[in-house]
Amino acid sequence: MMKLEAFENYIHKMNDLSHAAMLLSWDLKTKAPKNASDSHISALTTLSTEVFKMSTDEELRGYIEDIENHEKELDEVTVGMAKKLKKEYVRSKNIPTALYSQFVALTSKAEYVWEGAKRQNDFNSFQPYLEQIVELSKEMAHYIDPTQKAYDVLLEDFEPGIKSDQLTVIFEELRKGVVPLVEAIKTKAPIDDSQFYGHFDKEEQRKIAHYLLKQIGYNMDSGRLDESEHPFTIGTAPFDVRITTHYLKEDARSSIFSVLHEGGHGIYEQNINPRLKGTPLATGTSMGIHESQSRLYENIIGRSKAFWAPLYEEVIKIIPQYKALDLEDFYRGINRIEPSLIRTEADELTYNLHIILRFELEMALFNNEIKVKDLPEAWRYKMKKYLGVVPETDAEGVLQDTHWAGGAFGYFPSYALGNVYGAQFVHQIEKEKGYSLESLLQRGQLDTVSHWLKEHIHQYGALKTPSQLIREACGEDINVRPLLTYYQNKYTQLYKL
Amino acid sequence: MMKLEAFENYIHKMNDLSHAAMLLSWDLKTKAPKNASDSHISALTTLSTEVFKMSTDEELRGYIEDIENHEKELDEVTVGMAKKLKKEYVRSKNIPTALYSQFVALTSKAEYVWEGAKRQNDFNSFQPYLEQIVELSKEMAHYIDPTQKAYDVLLEDFEPGIKSDQLTVIFEELRKGVVPLVEAIKTKAPIDDSQFYGHFDKEEQRKIAHYLLKQIGYNMDSGRLDESEHPFTIGTAPFDVRITTHYLKEDARSSIFSVLHEGGHGIYEQNINPRLKGTPLATGTSMGIHESQSRLYENIIGRSKAFWAPLYEEVIKIIPQYKALDLEDFYRGINRIEPSLIRTEADELTYNLHIILRFELEMALFNNEIKVKDLPEAWRYKMKKYLGVVPETDAEGVLQDTHWAGGAFGYFPSYALGNVYGAQFVHQIEKEKGYSLESLLQRGQLDTVSHWLKEHIHQYGALKTPSQLIREACGEDINVRPLLTYYQNKYTQLYKL
Repeated sequence: MMKLEAFENYIHKMNDLSHAAMLLSWDLKTKAPKNASDSHISALTTLSTEVFKMSTDEELRGYIEDIENHEKELDEVTVGMAKKLKKEYVRSKNIPTALYSQFVALTSKAEYVWEGAKRQNDFNSFQPYLEQIVELSKEMAHYIDPTQKAYDVLLEDFEPGIKSDQLTVIFEELRKGVVPLVEAIKTKAPIDDSQFYGHFDKEEQRKIAHYLLKQIGYNMDSGRLDESEHPFTIGTAPFDVRITTHYLKEDARSSIFSVLHEGGHGIYEQNINPRLKGTPLATGTSMGIHESQSRLYENIIGRSKAFWAPLYEEVIKIIPQYKALDLEDFYRGINRIEPSLIRTEADELTYNLHIILRFELEMALFNNEIKVKDLPEAWRYKMKKYLGVVPETDAEGVLQDTHWAGGAFGYFPSYALGNVYGAQFVHQIEKEKGYSLESLLQRGQLDTVSHWLKEHIHQYGALKTPSQLIREACGEDINVRPLLTYYQNKYTQLYKL
Repeated sequence: MMKLEAFENYIHKMNDLSHAAMLLSWDLKTKAPKNASDSHISALTTLSTEVFKMSTDEELRGYIEDIENHEKELDEVTVGMAKKLKKEYVRSKNIPTALYSQFVALTSKAEYVWEGAKRQNDFNSFQPYLEQIVELSKEMAHYIDPTQKAYDVLLEDFEPGIKSDQLTVIFEELRKGVVPLVEAIKTKAPIDDSQFYGHFDKEEQRKIAHYLLKQIGYNMDSGRLDESEHPFTIGTAPFDVRITTHYLKEDARSSIFSVLHEGGHGIYEQNINPRLKGTPLATGTSMGIHESQSRLYENIIGRSKAFWAPLYEEVIKIIPQYKALDLEDFYRGINRIEPSLIRTEADELTYNLHIILRFELEMALFNNEIKVKDLPEAWRYKMKKYLGVVPETDAEGVLQDTHWAGGAFGYFPSYALGNVYGAQFVHQIEKEKGYSLESLLQRGQLDTVSHWLKEHIHQYGALKTPSQLIREACGEDINVRPLLTYYQNKYTQLYKL
């Protein structure tokens, strides 16, 4: 079948261009010399535009139709590719290429402007960029599907199949479970974690990072760990999946948990079945599922005592300052619950409230209920309402995250969805194995968990939709209960509620 | 002029694709995870092929013709671009795209195979690749210009305007000047450099590298220094020009001089006039001129006593082992003349003989006088003849250099041409300034030299041909005399000949 070969060459080329764009993007944030950023952004825009053009080209539509007409005779990867490409084609075909290019160039530039604005606590310098990003995002959403709410159209990019109405319900249940727990904890004596502060050598932090990545099965032959201003994971799965972290000299926990988080993303992509390599299916199926892996390793696993028990002797060898803490102190210190300003540094409970705040602001922006210029004030208002703390600066408020600068409206809900999915997976593993996660980890059987995740989630890449994955893996749809039960059990015990 | 804008967009896109290819190539040799090499090579092949297609496209020919027809009204950069692109177009238009792609993929792969072959001293595993590279190179040369000798066609890529007959004459004069000097030195007691060996901390070597790069004016805001198996310079001039080095723990000289060498390449590209940015003129005009800059900083400057005199106090602060050596010991130890096996580690005199050997072998290969399988033996024969030493292994013989694996037949002569050009430039600087290089450096006026080079060489990028540059800068054509005079003066004094 000559056409199949032509289709494969076409995909191959798209994949090569995406791979180069990935590398430019990685380099821009990790290694590129200061003066190189213009060249990088220009090349990134050109390559992304090429990929965009190819994904909306008539030639591709032809291949897709041919595959649809011969679905029965073809393998599931080919059919899966066609399905995914069709979806992207339908979604993007009405977006003018010039608009897309403009959006890529604008957001690349805006990420730079945002960095400066955050550093100088200057929302005004960032505001015009953000306004333009919101405008272009609305425009694109309208081109994609004028019959739907703009925000729902954007959500589809991160969590296919989910709508803002459904999220509102899910998040309401989540909020109702989390808030009373946080209130109860507030009545108890706070955990003292003063011994976690000090001066932590970067080399030690790098060592513990590599040690932990090895423990959770991240493969350095198919990845790297570098430093960047903000931790991230980027890659071409499964053989080039790179993660970054950021070392704080005064507190090693920040990097430890960001490494577990990015490591979770990394493992997901590294474990994708190699037969999907070079296809558009060699990627996470949604950002919610992606965040389920990162937040599972960071929190449900990474903040459990049982995970650290078999490792703790080695940990204090690498970071001698922790010798002053025994395992119990350590466990308590990594689970201090306290409403705070910064999402990425938040504890696992209040983290959800940070997400709900952002979700509501995004909805309000796209439903034209507030304007970009009102965001700082709205931020402070909602922080007060949900977390009871108010940032004194925009740097610690509305400017803290890079997502909006990158044009990723609709991304934030993924983190909370990730928390929810992750707990469902663990619940299912416990059911199947007949042991609690705690007892598996205690006995050093983390690989039982990773193996289940690889088997039921990772290997499929984007071959299955999020809801399909969950249903097949757990026998149910999205369900907030396991997460709330996990929180309830863990914090009742920890804080003696 | 609408067409000019279309032309600029066309160039812009070519430049973006080349920039991405540059980054892939850099990453492949410095940072890429082991398992990523296939993806990198694939993307590199796709991007290079795209650039190649664009450089031979009818659309481009149209733009070039338009510019030719309006030369009088246009600025020199536009006219210069058209001239360079025309040359590449004429050169490449007959090469089938598939052949070009095959060549890129083959050489990317061969560079990997060569690394393994060198490590394991196994010429046989590399031989079939090299045979294919030679075959494809001959084929391409025939497509480019069937009326010329294949080797002359290849030379044009590295040193436009020069032919093998002319090189034979130049190299004969060079050989006749160098051999008697080397013979005379052999009758003298060898310089004792045993104190240069020891254990040199990588961090110290990195520090001295950065210190020296700063001294010679390499700009870290537009570049980087990394480690790689073999030192190289790669970049998109003038704002992203990266160099690498390789640290030997037993002898810091290796990295010191490779850093000065690559730094010389780096400065050349960083000093290209920014108005050439994003055009095909933002690159060195030939590899000979490029090597003139690298070898000038490495040798004529870098191996002079006067260069080190003002820096030496700082040097021994950074590398305490060198405290045992005074400046005179250091100067002697970095100028030990002794025929040896490895080109990159050779002294500046015998280095030329390594090049002549390679030039002769390349000519013989492309004139069908020898076969790839005969290379190891021919190598040993010529080493004996020109240098009086014979490698015991192919790893130290025919497998030592990466150039042939990369398909760069015709590159080697550039190094010797670089030596020749560099001495001409210094001679001219001395004439214009009325001071010897020695007295300029002694007084810390390296910037007088760098400024002259920027003014007369660097800034032009590829806007002028090599012969034009030399003639305008030095008022003469290529001339071996200044180099031989420099050698004569330096080594007569150093070895008391």
